[in-house]
Amino acid sequence: MSPSPVPETSSRGYIIPIGGAEDKVQGKEILSRFWSLAGGKKSQIAIIPTASRLEDTGERYKTIFESMGGKGMVLSIRDRSDAEKEEYNSILEEATGIFMTGGNQLRLSTILGGTRIATQIRRKNANGIPVAGTSAGAAFISEHMIAFGQEGSTPIAGKVTLAPGLGLSNRVIVDQHFRQRDRLGRLMTALAYNPFVQGIGLDEDTAAFINHQNEIEVVGEGALTIVDVADLEYSSMASAREGDTVELIGVKLHVISHGARYNLVTRKAIPGGKR
Amino acid sequence: MSPSPVPETSSRGYIIPIGGAEDKVQGKEILSRFWSLAGGKKSQIAIIPTASRLEDTGERYKTIFESMGGKGMVLSIRDRSDAEKEEYNSILEEATGIFMTGGNQLRLSTILGGTRIATQIRRKNANGIPVAGTSAGAAFISEHMIAFGQEGSTPIAGKVTLAPGLGLSNRVIVDQHFRQRDRLGRLMTALAYNPFVQGIGLDEDTAAFINHQNEIEVVGEGALTIVDVADLEYSSMASAREGDTVELIGVKLHVISHGARYNLVTRKAIPGGKR
Repeated sequence: MSPSPVPETSSRGYIIPIGGAEDKVQGKEILSRFWSLAGGKKSQIAIIPTASRLEDTGERYKTIFESMGGKGMVLSIRDRSDAEKEEYNSILEEATGIFMTGGNQLRLSTILGGTRIATQIRRKNANGIPVAGTSAGAAFISEHMIAFGQEGSTPIAGKVTLAPGLGLSNRVIVDQHFRQRDRLGRLMTALAYNPFVQGIGLDEDTAAFINHQNEIEVVGEGALTIVDVADLEYSSMASAREGDTVELIGVKLHVISHGARYNLVTRKAIPGGKR
Repeated sequence: MSPSPVPETSSRGYIIPIGGAEDKVQGKEILSRFWSLAGGKKSQIAIIPTASRLEDTGERYKTIFESMGGKGMVLSIRDRSDAEKEEYNSILEEATGIFMTGGNQLRLSTILGGTRIATQIRRKNANGIPVAGTSAGAAFISEHMIAFGQEGSTPIAGKVTLAPGLGLSNRVIVDQHFRQRDRLGRLMTALAYNPFVQGIGLDEDTAAFINHQNEIEVVGEGALTIVDVADLEYSSMASAREGDTVELIGVKLHVISHGARYNLVTRKAIPGGKR
């Protein structure tokens, strides 16, 4: 089955990294917003629980989405051979939204990387289907993914490991559980390797809804921290030894919250104001 | 005893906030640099252990400074009446350097604030005498002091409490144990109240040597994080409710390390490069 041609009229679907621990009980603001973009009561949401080792992770999201209306379909992909199964490819073909759960992002990249499933997710998103990921699922969304790294607020050489991700966007590197796990340092370290990319640090229960024009809208309870290194005056990354502080002069930070917007092209932020 | 007139030729002594946990055993780089500025083998260093509730804090520093040469003098000021004692004022009068230990900065402000000792420290510094403080002692140095606050990397309204400090500088707010205790959020919150001031976040075993021209030189093992909010485009501080994320657009960050310089007037940084 070759990828269907992309109609010229279609635009990329939303890309929705979520910082983990999103509300699943009360207003479910982030999940219901995604569900709505996926077609609401007519949605057919493919759930990919591959990052997780827990048996019920996929089913839990299926229950949540089906309680809103529409259909949830769990793709229980546990190894690379699962990711080539016709059955899962057919389910994904029908999906109007794709959701990747949390767990370990290296499970996503090692199991899905280079498979039919990964190709299909990319193609579906290019054709307008929204793709969301929470925690590990959020990290995996971008071209360059933080595999793991040491926590703390200042950048330390050698303390973050990047790996290729799913590649839905090459404009951002995502870090999640941002405030809760104190990850500014590792995000800055990741950006210091090559400042072409922008950093988005997502607090828990906070999502970046990125539209096809690369505008982010912040949804949720926490903050989105944008780290913009476009105007970096100096970085010691090339000469720093492992364990050294990476000196960075001229990092720009924006901390924005629910309702705020950030344009990844113009690099301008518009505050959300309080709810 | 009225303050002696400040000679027109004199310039302010160094102000040296230290991020806490400075090396006291090996190279003692920060302490020996301060000792040297205080006169080296001819130094007479007044040690103020008021922040600490431990009995031996002052004596410990006395031993360190005297092992380098010169004289250490502990001012055991435990309450406000101690701070008016002629004996301590005379010792301070002779001092060629003043060192404030760690502990609780609210002990420093509540016990020394408005006393002869506080006035004398300010006058001595104006006359060229270096004043160093570590941890709580560092926080106390500036006009606006972080009394306490919640940790975490994003700014949260109502989660930091400012108090008047000693007032040797009104250009900076100092936060200490910066990386170790994840304090970027509370420092940004403090700055958001009034962006005229710059934030300096000091990692442990790291000091900012601030000369009379308001140039900082970084000394030590960790990083100095400069938070410059001069170009802040937006702050939600005025309307944020307690517990809300404070939205801040346009924060500038510099992370610099040993040997680096930062000019508090021009707001320009020069990297230190690796040792």
